[in-house]
Amino acid sequence: MKDLAEFTETKYYKIESDISLECGKLLKDVQVAYETYGTLNKNGDNAILICHALTADAHAAGYHKGDKKPGWWDSMIGPNKAFDTNKYFIISSNVLGGCKGTTGPCSINPETQKSYGHDFPVITIEDMVKVQKKLVDFLGVKKMIVAGGSMGGMQAMEWSIKHPDTVKTTIIIASTARLSAQAIAFNAVGRNAIISDKNFNGGDYYDKNNTPDYGLAIARMVGHITYLCENAMHTKFGRDFKDKPNFDFGVDFQVESYLEYQGRIFVDRFDANSYLYITKAIDYYDPISKFGSLEKAFSKSSSRFLIICFDSDWLFTTSQSKEIVNALIAAGKDVSFVELKSPCGHDAFLIEHKTQTKIIKSFLRKDEP
Amino acid sequence: MKDLAEFTETKYYKIESDISLECGKLLKDVQVAYETYGTLNKNGDNAILICHALTADAHAAGYHKGDKKPGWWDSMIGPNKAFDTNKYFIISSNVLGGCKGTTGPCSINPETQKSYGHDFPVITIEDMVKVQKKLVDFLGVKKMIVAGGSMGGMQAMEWSIKHPDTVKTTIIIASTARLSAQAIAFNAVGRNAIISDKNFNGGDYYDKNNTPDYGLAIARMVGHITYLCENAMHTKFGRDFKDKPNFDFGVDFQVESYLEYQGRIFVDRFDANSYLYITKAIDYYDPISKFGSLEKAFSKSSSRFLIICFDSDWLFTTSQSKEIVNALIAAGKDVSFVELKSPCGHDAFLIEHKTQTKIIKSFLRKDEP
Repeated sequence: MKDLAEFTETKYYKIESDISLECGKLLKDVQVAYETYGTLNKNGDNAILICHALTADAHAAGYHKGDKKPGWWDSMIGPNKAFDTNKYFIISSNVLGGCKGTTGPCSINPETQKSYGHDFPVITIEDMVKVQKKLVDFLGVKKMIVAGGSMGGMQAMEWSIKHPDTVKTTIIIASTARLSAQAIAFNAVGRNAIISDKNFNGGDYYDKNNTPDYGLAIARMVGHITYLCENAMHTKFGRDFKDKPNFDFGVDFQVESYLEYQGRIFVDRFDANSYLYITKAIDYYDPISKFGSLEKAFSKSSSRFLIICFDSDWLFTTSQSKEIVNALIAAGKDVSFVELKSPCGHDAFLIEHKTQTKIIKSFLRKDEP
Repeated sequence: MKDLAEFTETKYYKIESDISLECGKLLKDVQVAYETYGTLNKNGDNAILICHALTADAHAAGYHKGDKKPGWWDSMIGPNKAFDTNKYFIISSNVLGGCKGTTGPCSINPETQKSYGHDFPVITIEDMVKVQKKLVDFLGVKKMIVAGGSMGGMQAMEWSIKHPDTVKTTIIIASTARLSAQAIAFNAVGRNAIISDKNFNGGDYYDKNNTPDYGLAIARMVGHITYLCENAMHTKFGRDFKDKPNFDFGVDFQVESYLEYQGRIFVDRFDANSYLYITKAIDYYDPISKFGSLEKAFSKSSSRFLIICFDSDWLFTTSQSKEIVNALIAAGKDVSFVELKSPCGHDAFLIEHKTQTKIIKSFLRKDEP
């Protein structure tokens, strides 16, 4: 047992073989940033792969040395937590296309010795999973559980479809088999804001003094509106002014102050090109079109499934989770489904750790090593 | 009777007195662009004032010479239509702060002989109504009906509160007494996109070669997402590609093509500064806070009311219309309320002319001159 009171650290794995992408291109020298918590057993069958959402990273749990904040899902990963490091070997990696250590548009292109920028090929959820497969093979995993929220749920779904020999259990939280037109529209607005930023320069800004921060901040603001539900916004901010009406176009209402802050802190931790590439991967993911139906997509899966959604999530709705559940039932799979009550909207999967822990712990009892 | 088969034209009225604004400033030489349809009777009591939404103008009905498209609410205004020009004298004017002929940020500031830009004071819905009052007085109107959708509904509400001697009937469609935090957030994103456009230049761009088109287009895209409901987007576009997946960041899905088109055509007909000023006026409108309650706000009104909303409108929801209805009932006013079924979301008030016509015609029977 590894105690997460110890510091956690991000490690890096360099994949030796080229990655053959969905777009037809090859990607060389791919590096994966990852963290592990707990210990892999001799059979290599007590692993849990945690898949992250749009803007997270490999640092899912514990504290990095010197940090005041733990990893992004620390409330769910650790001794006796939902994903119990006393029992499981937990892996979390940064996705392909990201900007937190795994190869992405800000990485050095081995062919030019400059950052890829938009020479980086468009990647997909399937490509992200390919890279993760290389990592879990390298780590010696034979059988595993895969879990993720939002885009992480898409990766978990893809794992269950693509790797039935490896995945015995799949947990898909606050996710969908494919985006609605409205969700694509929100992503498109964010991308447009980035691309039209005066510092974007066709995605080639890494050696410039200025980066497309305004555009990225606006993309993040749009995102945050969709992560909170209207009621949550009403409760948090209502129509309160930050101070009093300014009669100008600066930050005026509390909700504006919140969005401005979220935009501002985001640009310090995220790369605008990664935002473009990852949102595009999310938009493209569509096993329903790819396989003809979701039932067919799941037909070869040998996993059992837990689907969790939140009643106030209007980005990835309960009916979208039910679509997954119905397909799994039609495909004759073992599936459990829970809609949790929460006022937190889509963000609930990052916040509501108590209810999720209860559900996940009892669901995972069957898998206990 | 004036037949709208004749061409309609926009006229201009110059207000002689200064307009004293809510922000405390004075606005000189205010001009109002307006159109009228039908004939005012001798008593001056057969008028209907039509109030427009965020981006419309005075040209509500009929055709301008050479135009292929009629005014924005032509389906509702004309002989035997909902607002019947055989019976009523119908007035439609561009709002203060607009860019279609009424004084706004793109107008010439008489003190500098240059366009106002951000020297234009921040205006409110109350200020818009003040300017409209000058116009209807000039036109000889003594008693009138006021009607509008979306922001037009806010103006209609303000008329009923502020001018009980003039307003006998108020029709508020797809509107709200005040914006939700979420709706303010969407407006804030749009304003941020405009303000961070490289050509914005602090709002002083009228004599420059380039205007903040990218920012304004993004603001419009965000707006359009809120004007359609998710189901309407799904039905219209689904996940269809314009052609096939591009594997780049250009227009890819049909819904992206729609938004891009809406953004592109909008910048040719609207001024970015007007977008800032008018969305701010919408955000600020809040008779509930101003009067202590909506019931108190309506207490002096001598109007009867028709409130119409649409079940798929998620920008200004049915529950927001019911809040108005409940306040009117509590204030002892005569109120009729209809929630119409429509797949068109907030845009329904511009589209669903048949159902609205039926309701409005029967409601107005009492007012017939």
